[in-house]
Amino acid sequence: MNATKDRQDLILAEAKKLNKEVFDEKNLVKNPTEKQQFQKESPKLVTLEEAIRKSGLKDGMTISFHHHFRGGDKVVNMVVDKLAEMGFKNLSLAASSLQDVHEPLIEHIKNGVITSISTSGLRGKLADEISRGLMEKPVIFRSHGGRGSAIANGDLHIDVAFIGASSSDPLGNACGYSRSENAKSICGSLGYALPDAQYADKVVILTDDLVAYPNTPNSISEHNVDYVVEVDSVGDSSKIASGAIRDTKNPRDILLAKQAAKVIVNSGYFKEGFSIQTGSGGASLAAVKYIRQSMIDQNIHASFALGGITAHMVKLHEEGLIDRLIDVQSFDRVAAESIMNDPKHKEVSANEYASADEPGSATHYLDIVILSALEVDTDFNVNVLVGSDGIIRGAIGGHPDTAADSALSIIVCPLLRGRIPCVVDKVTTLITPGKSVDVVVTEYGIAVNPNRPEIAERLKKAGLNVVDINWLKERALKVIGTPAPLPFGDKVVGVVMNRDGSVLDVIKNINA
Amino acid sequence: MNATKDRQDLILAEAKKLNKEVFDEKNLVKNPTEKQQFQKESPKLVTLEEAIRKSGLKDGMTISFHHHFRGGDKVVNMVVDKLAEMGFKNLSLAASSLQDVHEPLIEHIKNGVITSISTSGLRGKLADEISRGLMEKPVIFRSHGGRGSAIANGDLHIDVAFIGASSSDPLGNACGYSRSENAKSICGSLGYALPDAQYADKVVILTDDLVAYPNTPNSISEHNVDYVVEVDSVGDSSKIASGAIRDTKNPRDILLAKQAAKVIVNSGYFKEGFSIQTGSGGASLAAVKYIRQSMIDQNIHASFALGGITAHMVKLHEEGLIDRLIDVQSFDRVAAESIMNDPKHKEVSANEYASADEPGSATHYLDIVILSALEVDTDFNVNVLVGSDGIIRGAIGGHPDTAADSALSIIVCPLLRGRIPCVVDKVTTLITPGKSVDVVVTEYGIAVNPNRPEIAERLKKAGLNVVDINWLKERALKVIGTPAPLPFGDKVVGVVMNRDGSVLDVIKNINA
Repeated sequence: MNATKDRQDLILAEAKKLNKEVFDEKNLVKNPTEKQQFQKESPKLVTLEEAIRKSGLKDGMTISFHHHFRGGDKVVNMVVDKLAEMGFKNLSLAASSLQDVHEPLIEHIKNGVITSISTSGLRGKLADEISRGLMEKPVIFRSHGGRGSAIANGDLHIDVAFIGASSSDPLGNACGYSRSENAKSICGSLGYALPDAQYADKVVILTDDLVAYPNTPNSISEHNVDYVVEVDSVGDSSKIASGAIRDTKNPRDILLAKQAAKVIVNSGYFKEGFSIQTGSGGASLAAVKYIRQSMIDQNIHASFALGGITAHMVKLHEEGLIDRLIDVQSFDRVAAESIMNDPKHKEVSANEYASADEPGSATHYLDIVILSALEVDTDFNVNVLVGSDGIIRGAIGGHPDTAADSALSIIVCPLLRGRIPCVVDKVTTLITPGKSVDVVVTEYGIAVNPNRPEIAERLKKAGLNVVDINWLKERALKVIGTPAPLPFGDKVVGVVMNRDGSVLDVIKNINA
Repeated sequence: MNATKDRQDLILAEAKKLNKEVFDEKNLVKNPTEKQQFQKESPKLVTLEEAIRKSGLKDGMTISFHHHFRGGDKVVNMVVDKLAEMGFKNLSLAASSLQDVHEPLIEHIKNGVITSISTSGLRGKLADEISRGLMEKPVIFRSHGGRGSAIANGDLHIDVAFIGASSSDPLGNACGYSRSENAKSICGSLGYALPDAQYADKVVILTDDLVAYPNTPNSISEHNVDYVVEVDSVGDSSKIASGAIRDTKNPRDILLAKQAAKVIVNSGYFKEGFSIQTGSGGASLAAVKYIRQSMIDQNIHASFALGGITAHMVKLHEEGLIDRLIDVQSFDRVAAESIMNDPKHKEVSANEYASADEPGSATHYLDIVILSALEVDTDFNVNVLVGSDGIIRGAIGGHPDTAADSALSIIVCPLLRGRIPCVVDKVTTLITPGKSVDVVVTEYGIAVNPNRPEIAERLKKAGLNVVDINWLKERALKVIGTPAPLPFGDKVVGVVMNRDGSVLDVIKNINA
């Protein structure tokens, strides 16, 4: 009585107006399979080779990776080996960072599989070879916030993202830890992979713990995932706290950390509700240990710690001294386990962490950051990427992002590393412009940027040894003499992008 | 020594190749303001009128709202009143659903402020008037999954989303609860608002608890938020469990719930690791209470409950009988508080919940759903939107999404509601096609879709009263006689979209 011709005509008329089809029952598929069985038949569940084929990856496209397993990462080599085997050429590799472990990329570059790279940093033999001119195209270096922005605004378009995850269900709900008894790995936050998951055309999850649906809580949603690949191992979790983020036992680092803590406490920003980040590097990471007692004594609590979250910060959080942890990258296993279990330990994407384009990104609300440096110059410019020998040996990380956005940026670095001066006339490579650097802490004294006379005043009042940065440079020169100019060639092997997408510096090949 | 003309030339050359500017220090702003102060100066923090102006909203555009406060919602009326006051005309209102409380929209429709509506449902006087032909353009009705898909694929483009949140920081990290002592409201999951937050051109958060950064955990990220507006109240939380989701005390509902529980237990799908959802409606919601003892007796645990999460489900979860809760909408305060505190109680977006376009959406992995109906016909078609008097009085909700995707869909409905038959020859309006409906439970017997003979067999074996659906219809007719045809007019007042974007049915105006 209702499904009359009249009604059918009206349905057809409305469908035409809306430029839509009329419902066809044939398109409705009722599947009575028990859903635990159906999960196992997930169309997303494929081998790595199938994922690559189905993704539509072609020569010349861009693939991406995260570095949350740091020195323990197994995904980059596994995937690029497979791509080489499958005959791909001329790919762009967009990593959030690259480590010593990625040395096998050298062969893939020589064979034309990988012809361009963008990353936050390079280390080890791969860095050596690239510094000497291995690649035709210069490597594009971006900060973590800069990479997030570049992905969001389309400067860095990712065709296929390959994301290692410590657990995933067959639909792609994935994260950097696992609650199952079969957990094989843990890296904690997947913050640097989140823009890739959101913006890449195709997203492949590789996991070493395929769990039943629903894997929850999860940091990457099935909504963004195209394929799920089960592998033996995505990473060696024992190596998360490797490289630049080992806990220091070096006495000079501890001295620097203690000095940095004094700067913090006397800076004027050490107040109830302040916020803090410690960057990589032993002295920087350790600084938070040495403000703890002052927080207790003065009854001061931090509203949040940002980072780069470490066991030190988790401890202060659990003691009630830090209210929230905001974690773009878990720097050790304690931090990774904390993010799994503590709802006030929050995972953020690279964009939520440090994008210059987002008024709401965390770095904009950061009071104090403590950072390390390979070199600082007399204009307070900082280099964290290229060694004083001209060889790339580091990573930009969130250095320029946090220095620029924080209210107070503190650089900790020794005046000399062996025979190498760290306070110099001009940095070898410009990473963080001096305008965003406020204080430089060395074992010979503390230099304050002339832009911040109020800070110098407060530190002097507290009896700290405030010195002129030129005096520090001279002092270094006195010990080791003027270094010979570096034997740079004429080829540009690296381009340093500022976080706003402009070009900050170039790195030339070195003939050493 | 490094910043020579040579280097500057190289920087310029690389910038040109990349089509980028060279870094200009003038663009680097160092802000030494204490960040707790700086938060308060967040450029996103504006009045409602400023948010509307800055959003670029223009006549003819589409605005959106969620219905997580159900009958207690205050945001729709507040915003549309303001838009009317500001002189806007010809706006499209895209709500996830509308309730009795939205009666003031009638005036805004008459005055030309709102000229088109899309929603899951309509109730009360607004529904009455629209059924009688209030609007020029038909209301577009979509299921929750269908709305999510339409937003994701661009069928439903939202210019400005207005999202009520129980807490937000000045940057827009927002959620449906608050951890602060000033908490004024709670609605739990913001699942239906999440596609709006992700896909709308501009997103405005309205909150009655502006908290310090970082509001974490949060369900909407600052990444997606343009403006934050502090208001007195976004909703009356005491009314979340209003309308179709009150806990039933009606003896007939309890009888139906118990029968549905028997169907579940004997369906063949009641196995370790099964999954379950209960839709709105007293009998449907209550069914889960009555499978509890069987779960304990047979040592059966559910892998997840989906929904529409209720206190009943939270109880079973906390008892260890349900492993995970997947929550697109918290149906009562207990559920809302659970999602705030329990990491295994997960918030999902409408797309993650029920999108037909996503192989990973939860409904695809749902074994059993129990749903209610206004009418079921002898082809098992279901109507949950239009009363037997031709007046719109309900909502599609996730009905067709869950019925289609689940392995077993069970409809609970009385044979008669007063003098109104619920099992009929043809449904007044087609919402859920019979092909996706498996079992109909009435107080007079249980009808099984002929497509599912194995289910009928199992239920008969268990001694349940399995009857032919035509017998149920005849029985209803015997009691009340053949109803007179409804006095429908010729105007189309509503178009029912299927979840795949095709047109399922039309609703004509009623002259009663």
